[in-house]
Amino acid sequence: MNPVIKIGMLGMGNIGTGVVKVLSSNGSDIEEKVGRRIQLESILVRDIKKKRAVDVSHLLTTDPADILENPEIDIVVEVMGTIDTAFEYILRAFENKKAVVTANKDLVAVHGKKLFEAAEENGVDFFFEGSVAGGIPIIRPLKECLCGNRINGVMGIINGTTNYILTAMSHGGKEFAEALEEAQRLGYAEPDPTADIEGLDAARKIAILASIAFNSRITYPDVYVEGITKITSYDIQYAEELGYRVKLLGIAKGTEEEVEVRVHPVLIPSSHPLASVYNEFNAIFVEGDAVGETMFYGKGAGELPTASAVVGDIISAARNIQNGTPGRIGCTCFKNKRIKHISEVESKFYIRISVSDRPGVLASIAGVFGNSSVSLASVIQKRLEGDLAEVVLITHKVREANLRDALAIIEGLSVVAEVGSVIRVEGSEE
Amino acid sequence: MNPVIKIGMLGMGNIGTGVVKVLSSNGSDIEEKVGRRIQLESILVRDIKKKRAVDVSHLLTTDPADILENPEIDIVVEVMGTIDTAFEYILRAFENKKAVVTANKDLVAVHGKKLFEAAEENGVDFFFEGSVAGGIPIIRPLKECLCGNRINGVMGIINGTTNYILTAMSHGGKEFAEALEEAQRLGYAEPDPTADIEGLDAARKIAILASIAFNSRITYPDVYVEGITKITSYDIQYAEELGYRVKLLGIAKGTEEEVEVRVHPVLIPSSHPLASVYNEFNAIFVEGDAVGETMFYGKGAGELPTASAVVGDIISAARNIQNGTPGRIGCTCFKNKRIKHISEVESKFYIRISVSDRPGVLASIAGVFGNSSVSLASVIQKRLEGDLAEVVLITHKVREANLRDALAIIEGLSVVAEVGSVIRVEGSEE
Repeated sequence: MNPVIKIGMLGMGNIGTGVVKVLSSNGSDIEEKVGRRIQLESILVRDIKKKRAVDVSHLLTTDPADILENPEIDIVVEVMGTIDTAFEYILRAFENKKAVVTANKDLVAVHGKKLFEAAEENGVDFFFEGSVAGGIPIIRPLKECLCGNRINGVMGIINGTTNYILTAMSHGGKEFAEALEEAQRLGYAEPDPTADIEGLDAARKIAILASIAFNSRITYPDVYVEGITKITSYDIQYAEELGYRVKLLGIAKGTEEEVEVRVHPVLIPSSHPLASVYNEFNAIFVEGDAVGETMFYGKGAGELPTASAVVGDIISAARNIQNGTPGRIGCTCFKNKRIKHISEVESKFYIRISVSDRPGVLASIAGVFGNSSVSLASVIQKRLEGDLAEVVLITHKVREANLRDALAIIEGLSVVAEVGSVIRVEGSEE
Repeated sequence: MNPVIKIGMLGMGNIGTGVVKVLSSNGSDIEEKVGRRIQLESILVRDIKKKRAVDVSHLLTTDPADILENPEIDIVVEVMGTIDTAFEYILRAFENKKAVVTANKDLVAVHGKKLFEAAEENGVDFFFEGSVAGGIPIIRPLKECLCGNRINGVMGIINGTTNYILTAMSHGGKEFAEALEEAQRLGYAEPDPTADIEGLDAARKIAILASIAFNSRITYPDVYVEGITKITSYDIQYAEELGYRVKLLGIAKGTEEEVEVRVHPVLIPSSHPLASVYNEFNAIFVEGDAVGETMFYGKGAGELPTASAVVGDIISAARNIQNGTPGRIGCTCFKNKRIKHISEVESKFYIRISVSDRPGVLASIAGVFGNSSVSLASVIQKRLEGDLAEVVLITHKVREANLRDALAIIEGLSVVAEVGSVIRVEGSEE
């Protein structure tokens, strides 16, 4: 047995830098907690000469074999990103009986099953707390603390960029493009913001969370996704008048037989705990049959918050090595639930329609909804300029397919100028 | 090795009933997760004939030896309450090499150290997630997920009764006595509410949380405590005008050398995540050097939420038995930090003083504060009826002893009718 537990790290970007900082500033306490010293032994980078925020020049290598084939290394930390290369490296690490800790959601959301199988085959740990919601503890609480529960739903603000943008649109009255630009200027959005604003990043995270919550494998392509690019400050204000806030949520709901997993903007009651999560903060709302409603809140990204999760996983892997129980908790996807198509999902909807301001318009729209079994919870009609009026409806729960049928007919009505917005409503009692 | 893992439970009140329900409704999933069946084998009660909500008559015994000395039993679940008897029974369980799960905060907050020592000596697990904040996962997240962090502070709404009362006073404009009566009628407060409203219950919980967060043993008598009986709806409204809400918080802050641990009402900025935690809900706000601000929210009491935590612990103990690693994570109090006296603690304060409405009054009060090095952040003076006025001050951070010195002098001023309220302010930037 090594007198110290040795770490090899793949990648030295933001998160890698955070990991170095946390291990170095809190190393002596971590040693007390684990019972053995944890030592960073080697770091794989592309460019050894690049200037870095922390001095790790003596640890750098450009040869993955220095880590993956190094018998001294106990735990491999993958913070390099990418899917294919990271996948290949992690499999090699497993084959060489090394525990792996990753923060790579793109990888886990696609290859989670194969990674778990390889870890299990080799009797080592595979941890990925940092892949969802940065520093917020959520994977381990679901797998351990709440695992006596039957989870009914997981709903989360799991993308900080879009939450920052929606907060700026709500609090500052900005339009989407302007809010996005501000987010980019402040570093909350990437130069190419597609993965965030189109909901793809959130989709990867909810796939991972849903797999754990419902004990059934859900991958990224299983997730229905809509982004926030069509949200207007106009709708946000309407929503607020009606007592709602607009958020991009990852949503997963399940029964014994099936699950629905989706990412899209929602109206959520302003009294809901998720409604008060602002700016770049994330939060995950979990409903279990025993625990009831619970929520986990914090920073969902960033060098140090994500490093907090990665180091937590390193410590767990180290404790398992120390106790001789690697693989203590492995894959928990022991079920195989059917994944619902979005057309089968039942939601409430907020719908804004521009119409001619003529008598009988509301009756004809309500008639179409009635014929498609869409029941209305509330209707507001407002006069706009000229001869246009605006009808804002909130429906009761309705099957998505029925709603789409009704909207197709309504869009064809001569009195209807435009179906302006269709946003699902979540988090309110039926 | 037993083909099943057998549980003996001490007590069959609310929480015990919840544990029976959860194990019975989710038993088959739990078996999949653990890899072995978990079976309730025996339950200690005082009265076998008592009518119960779930049928467990075949499991009941009045003899503790049937559980504590029964070699078949692997895990003892203590949900009977009391300090001395529970302590004695748990020690016997440890001696007989049984893991112990408890939800007994009174016991853990006083005898935590001895319990851990006994568990360690006998190589078994000791878990107590249910002892703090009911179903909210907080002990394990602190001990595992966040354990790479240096924790700077833990601040929580950890008593549902007082949060219910303060919410009723704030939202409904009720006075304390009326809100308490409502809480009692609805079952949120006990017939004898002392432990809740005087902050004693919260003090036990913050002692437990602080011990884990700062890796140094803090017991119930170490905690400075003030309850909410002196809070008036008048001060709550004043606070709201100033942008604050009034909450009863358990607060623990620490450095490498010392910790401060206290329970008292506070003014907290209405934008703070804890400010939106209403009614009987609990939430614990944790600040770590890596993770930043994080919060854990949910129901802090009740049959099923607490059972969720207890069953989570049972599963952890069962996984450790299954893997042959009982005692995998034991006591983490490896430091011995000095506990600050309240007089040394630095806080901001909200102070309301009734004075004669005469020129120069404010100057003389401000003068006294100045002489005691109490620096003022804001001052409002309002005219009351007759020749009385009211001065409401918020101070900058000041050492408690200095503030008390100043208030003693101010109370003696001839122009001062009464120092009406002194409430600490937390959660705002300096």
